[in-house]
Amino acid sequence: MSRARCKIGVVAPASRMSADVATRVPALAARLYPDRTPEIVFHPQCFASHGHFAGDDETRASAFLDFANNEGYDAVWFARGGYGSCRLVETIMRGLTETSKRKAYLGYSDAGMLLAALYRAGFEGVAHGPMAQDILRNAGDSAVARALAWMIDRAPEALEPIVVGAKKTAAFNMTVLDHLLGTPFEPDLDGHVLMLEEVGEAMYRIDRSLFHITSNANVRRVSGIMLGRCSRITPNEPDFGMNEEEIAQYWCRRAGIPWLGRADIGHDTDNKIVPFGPWL
Amino acid sequence: MSRARCKIGVVAPASRMSADVATRVPALAARLYPDRTPEIVFHPQCFASHGHFAGDDETRASAFLDFANNEGYDAVWFARGGYGSCRLVETIMRGLTETSKRKAYLGYSDAGMLLAALYRAGFEGVAHGPMAQDILRNAGDSAVARALAWMIDRAPEALEPIVVGAKKTAAFNMTVLDHLLGTPFEPDLDGHVLMLEEVGEAMYRIDRSLFHITSNANVRRVSGIMLGRCSRITPNEPDFGMNEEEIAQYWCRRAGIPWLGRADIGHDTDNKIVPFGPWL
Repeated sequence: MSRARCKIGVVAPASRMSADVATRVPALAARLYPDRTPEIVFHPQCFASHGHFAGDDETRASAFLDFANNEGYDAVWFARGGYGSCRLVETIMRGLTETSKRKAYLGYSDAGMLLAALYRAGFEGVAHGPMAQDILRNAGDSAVARALAWMIDRAPEALEPIVVGAKKTAAFNMTVLDHLLGTPFEPDLDGHVLMLEEVGEAMYRIDRSLFHITSNANVRRVSGIMLGRCSRITPNEPDFGMNEEEIAQYWCRRAGIPWLGRADIGHDTDNKIVPFGPWL
Repeated sequence: MSRARCKIGVVAPASRMSADVATRVPALAARLYPDRTPEIVFHPQCFASHGHFAGDDETRASAFLDFANNEGYDAVWFARGGYGSCRLVETIMRGLTETSKRKAYLGYSDAGMLLAALYRAGFEGVAHGPMAQDILRNAGDSAVARALAWMIDRAPEALEPIVVGAKKTAAFNMTVLDHLLGTPFEPDLDGHVLMLEEVGEAMYRIDRSLFHITSNANVRRVSGIMLGRCSRITPNEPDFGMNEEEIAQYWCRRAGIPWLGRADIGHDTDNKIVPFGPWL
């Protein structure tokens, strides 16, 4: 970082953040970095509410642009997932200035929509990893500490282990990637190790997602697929007959995509950092 | 039809068919067409079982090809939806012969995957409409009667009303179209009235599907979008703040796609027939 203290701006382009995140995360940061405590600013928009979302589309897009286009911030950190980034992506991409290119963007799940668009636009500090609200998970401090270690120091120990050796990497929630493919925000995945995770879906939906993803010509140019954790899988009626790893291997084989095993990512506190593109 | 008696072959490329469909559907057909009762043959595969599916992938694909490539059949009728057609589409498309082009294909929901691939391959008798298992719905006879009227006589009264005046039409379950876009089976939708229906999804998922669908360059060439019924919508937490029609209008407006109102299709007995392509 160019500054003694890293300045992190938290925004919520999807669902509303819980209020206590704004006290617990800075307290943890102060404990972890007593001599160079990062300044963590929660945009008031994080606490706004509009139907499903943390404020209406305009409010959320403006908040993102406030921090992304502000030279004072080193990182734009997603408060949480949920749903809503796809409604903003066009407005945000149109509103970003040169300043926005020189900072980090960290999130996962629904945030993948914006991470993809930023990466496609040539941003170099985009990464898939823990968000502020992960502090509410059981033992959530470890996830947030990892996010801070990446945003503050680009600490290699925060990374998914394959990142350092891979030419390029990218990571997505499967359903979010499903909804990116074929849109103007789909990034070029040629030569990337692609990591995929899922949460709260039935096994047949994981199968359907992996059909869709591995049938895509752009995705077929990846150097390989790794499967993150698929958590809170909902009941399949009748039993699907394959687990998520068998499904991923099946579709990789059919598509001629190298299967590279499991990735240490998912909707949990172990979720490691996966930068988009080459590492350093 | 070239024959006095229409011969219809029923296959189940997705989930398993209930056994009593095979007695109730022919009985209804005999009542409706006493002088020219169609011959309705249920492939044994309809009753097979393999995990989630009506038989394994090979069994289901073979069954479809048995009937599609057999000159004796005038129509291939989908037993039901569920999930599974995407696993077969590549094998089926590779196995079809010239004979298969000269018949009708009728189904909806998961079947949309195969309907799309057939239509893309130039098949002219592809339509979105009721399936055999719809007879189990309350007052399901009317849905099956409509399917028979189309397969036997191409009866105009079975059609969604806009079909006769439209240049070209197509209809899909939203989630199925989501998973088609960007695959080799995505049909050219240029100039089509595109009808979309949904079942069993939360409102935020309908919003996300419509983002994805209306952001696609191919879909943006449709002549307009009509919204079928969205039934059994699951709870949205918190309330989404828009209903499905407001959502569809919103995305049409953003994409510059003409909004053409509601379509008389859905996962119900009123589900009207929508041929793929031009009507006659």
